[in-house]
Amino acid sequence: MTMLRDPSVKYSAFPQVPLAKREWPARTITRAPIWLSTDLRDGNQSLIDPMDAEKKTRFFDLLVKAGFKEIEVGFPASGATDFDYIQNLVRSGRVPDDVTPQVLTQSRADLIRTSFDSLAGAKTAIVHVYNALAPAWRKIVFGMDKDDIKAIAIDGAKQLRDNAARLPDTDWRFQYSPECFSTTELDFSIEVCEAVMEILKPTSANPIILNLPATVEAATPNIYADQIEYFAKNLPNRDAAIISLHTHNDRGTGVAAAELGLLAGADRVEGCLFGNGERTGNTCLVTIALNMYTQGVDPGLDFSNIDEVIATVEYCNNLPVHPRHPYGGALVYTAFSGSHQDAIKKGFAARERQNDERWEVPYLPIDPADLGRSYEAVIRVNSQSGKGGVAWVLEQDKGLKLPKKMQASFSHIVQALADETSRELGAEDIWQAFERAYLTTDAKRFQLVDWSESHAGTDRIFAGKLTIDGIERSVSGRGNGLMSSVIAALAESGGPVMDIVDYSEHAIGQGSNVQAAAYVECRTADGKSLFGCGLDTDVATASVRAILSAANGA
Amino acid sequence: MTMLRDPSVKYSAFPQVPLAKREWPARTITRAPIWLSTDLRDGNQSLIDPMDAEKKTRFFDLLVKAGFKEIEVGFPASGATDFDYIQNLVRSGRVPDDVTPQVLTQSRADLIRTSFDSLAGAKTAIVHVYNALAPAWRKIVFGMDKDDIKAIAIDGAKQLRDNAARLPDTDWRFQYSPECFSTTELDFSIEVCEAVMEILKPTSANPIILNLPATVEAATPNIYADQIEYFAKNLPNRDAAIISLHTHNDRGTGVAAAELGLLAGADRVEGCLFGNGERTGNTCLVTIALNMYTQGVDPGLDFSNIDEVIATVEYCNNLPVHPRHPYGGALVYTAFSGSHQDAIKKGFAARERQNDERWEVPYLPIDPADLGRSYEAVIRVNSQSGKGGVAWVLEQDKGLKLPKKMQASFSHIVQALADETSRELGAEDIWQAFERAYLTTDAKRFQLVDWSESHAGTDRIFAGKLTIDGIERSVSGRGNGLMSSVIAALAESGGPVMDIVDYSEHAIGQGSNVQAAAYVECRTADGKSLFGCGLDTDVATASVRAILSAANGA
Repeated sequence: MTMLRDPSVKYSAFPQVPLAKREWPARTITRAPIWLSTDLRDGNQSLIDPMDAEKKTRFFDLLVKAGFKEIEVGFPASGATDFDYIQNLVRSGRVPDDVTPQVLTQSRADLIRTSFDSLAGAKTAIVHVYNALAPAWRKIVFGMDKDDIKAIAIDGAKQLRDNAARLPDTDWRFQYSPECFSTTELDFSIEVCEAVMEILKPTSANPIILNLPATVEAATPNIYADQIEYFAKNLPNRDAAIISLHTHNDRGTGVAAAELGLLAGADRVEGCLFGNGERTGNTCLVTIALNMYTQGVDPGLDFSNIDEVIATVEYCNNLPVHPRHPYGGALVYTAFSGSHQDAIKKGFAARERQNDERWEVPYLPIDPADLGRSYEAVIRVNSQSGKGGVAWVLEQDKGLKLPKKMQASFSHIVQALADETSRELGAEDIWQAFERAYLTTDAKRFQLVDWSESHAGTDRIFAGKLTIDGIERSVSGRGNGLMSSVIAALAESGGPVMDIVDYSEHAIGQGSNVQAAAYVECRTADGKSLFGCGLDTDVATASVRAILSAANGA
Repeated sequence: MTMLRDPSVKYSAFPQVPLAKREWPARTITRAPIWLSTDLRDGNQSLIDPMDAEKKTRFFDLLVKAGFKEIEVGFPASGATDFDYIQNLVRSGRVPDDVTPQVLTQSRADLIRTSFDSLAGAKTAIVHVYNALAPAWRKIVFGMDKDDIKAIAIDGAKQLRDNAARLPDTDWRFQYSPECFSTTELDFSIEVCEAVMEILKPTSANPIILNLPATVEAATPNIYADQIEYFAKNLPNRDAAIISLHTHNDRGTGVAAAELGLLAGADRVEGCLFGNGERTGNTCLVTIALNMYTQGVDPGLDFSNIDEVIATVEYCNNLPVHPRHPYGGALVYTAFSGSHQDAIKKGFAARERQNDERWEVPYLPIDPADLGRSYEAVIRVNSQSGKGGVAWVLEQDKGLKLPKKMQASFSHIVQALADETSRELGAEDIWQAFERAYLTTDAKRFQLVDWSESHAGTDRIFAGKLTIDGIERSVSGRGNGLMSSVIAALAESGGPVMDIVDYSEHAIGQGSNVQAAAYVECRTADGKSLFGCGLDTDVATASVRAILSAANGA
């Protein structure tokens, strides 16, 4: 036991933000932000195995295809690997005209110069300078006061200005991050950003990007939103700045912080696909984009083939996308529970009847088809599932539409099997269980060999050749219809005495492949229900088989 | 391309909540809620392979050990598996007196009766009834109007009351969930909860639990908080109800929704460890609890051996905890980046000097030791790492404290190796690289066989037996100290002509195992820096080895 009973001796509550009139909670996100992927920088630097050039290229192409217009491609001053990759990328012709590469550097003259050099030849580029402003960094890491720290930022801004003048062939843009913005005194962050802006002289036509990192999540996400609103309201010359968010997920609320930060007035979001990045990762841009999409807002990013995106991301990062990751995880459109399955089935059915495109399917916040996922995997069956899922699987895979009471009866068989095997049952398991229960006649009492029918007035006479208890016999019975004549024949041949309670049939498939499916519910003399199913290309034979199937269940 | 350019034809923005005076954003979480684990119910029913009894028992024991006082143990009316497990659990004596088992059931007389029966013999128990109130369910799933739906809830409440009277040996408590609370008209949820309360007559001494599920996340988390605040403010007889949150993670904001819901006045949180549960999972209770802990609030749950918790959860759920999952993931205390490593090192060093327990280490929002994690895994080295990480690893693992300039020099060697191998370097890789660079003399020019020292006035005379270029030779040199005499001997024997720029040494280990580590920086005639290191049980020999080590780098 090493957790403290009184953690307040070691940790403190994050203070409230002195925000006079809070506006963000009453707002709604109505348009997409500018997106910046930092998969190749924050994401890459935190991988156990950072990407090689081949993987970086593949990831870059994926980002372009998804619609990113700003991509942080590395930290060129960190070494030859990043520098060479960036130089090669810029010269490769791989960067479309409407895509701007961005590089990160600390605020040091030599590193900034190297960063500019790495981008030589780019049509347009963003150089992103950061320095740490937060109290813990000032005190512990640098041993500097506020003025020293501010001077570093100002010097960085001058380097940006002068290097841009040195290399006039590129359309340079500037980004500045007051590092650990979320744990820095707000007025100090504003003061330093203002000083940087005084050097770089941004305008609303040519704005600076001010990126406000929650480098480490340190409070509930409403606090970050307060910080963003405070910053946006108190920054002089606000119009000349694009306010950018960069949240991490240390408290599991990186997506929320970014969303509430957008409500608070930010214009841009930095993050990674599926939340890669230092420690717990950056905010997941796939999630934020699709959250907007499900609110009717075009995110400007395309994840219509989400499985392809996942495959590339997993290959490049060598980290898995969790099965429960929003929108992308393998299990997120899956319903195992019977009541969920039932509601989803009804939702899809209602959708077929409705006249508009509006999406309203219980338990599915997005149409999986919008992301290139099929419906087939939605409903899966385990020992906790009810009849709905089993019926759905049989209908989706085999075209069988079991009557409701037969669904219930068969689901008990499936549930017993699931309990017994203690694992998920696939569609094939369920189909085999159905075959064993109703269709196969091997090793069962009654097997159909052949049959014919004759009429006697309004009655029908069934004449069948059956194998009963392994011995081939000719049997016959009379009734007011085919099925009752089969039942009579069975009763006269030592089979169960039954009544028909319910009967239905439907076609499976179309044209020359069409099959008939017949379902019966019979009741025995002692009141027991027996269910049967018959499949055949001939409708009448399907009915005969269904009766024998029910009799075999006696 | 199947994503819509205009998703508003299919999806709508979630409406704002008509909350007159919003109070939650200005509040802070100051005490732990009541926790309810639904790992064995919502979690279990959504597993590909639901737990068998052995796994359920193991999970139950883990929850008790972690400090949960309310545990939802299943859905007993769903079938024999759950019923039998719950009956056995209750009768096993495994449930401590201060732990209350809870079971879930739909609002139907037979299912409620079965649910009570499953708990027969329990000292105290919670029966949790739900029915769906949300518009989509009324319309699509049930085809019922509000009155019909309300009647189902009222009937459920009567069943609760009557079954409790039928089985007076247990201290029964009641929980009601208006299902899909988050997408239901707020006033209708309140109306139905009020009707349920009228039947059950809760008091502040014996309150009902009203659980308000975001069954499917449908909006940004501030909306859920607004809903909770609205509900809490408008529910008559609020004191007689425990307001409980049950959030899912469809939009990646399940933790945030629960936290903001607590700010909005809720008393209790339902969820699962590491966010298991339907689709994207329930909110992660480990994350919420440790978020509180890092704000100085005792969560009342103990995760001081988080790796043990993870091992059990992964075993029982057969699902992984993601490497970036907050607090628990394998990578969340890991720093690969040089600047992060440097800051963390300084944070730990500052902590050794400080007089109180206050936690302030950059990039680590919690002390890994509080969760039973060691510091060793914090700093890891990949091709993106800088000198700080390398130095840290050598110090942690081998006790070597490299001078700063030598750290920089050696980190280039490590980085080249990382680039070359394109994978993470372990402590052993780094140690081997260090040995190859400075310690091993195999296949190097100068190897020490033996040496002695004599005095001549204030000068020292070094007489050594060395292997030089594979040939054993006797060499000697004179200087004002041991090291300069070794340098002189080398210069006279065809070795490099060098000056000493810097020298340091320290002990490694204690007592009879103590070793000396000596570091030198030499400069050659053409201004090149050469670094050397020598290890020996004898301090003087370590210095001699350090000089030879530097000479071997020439």
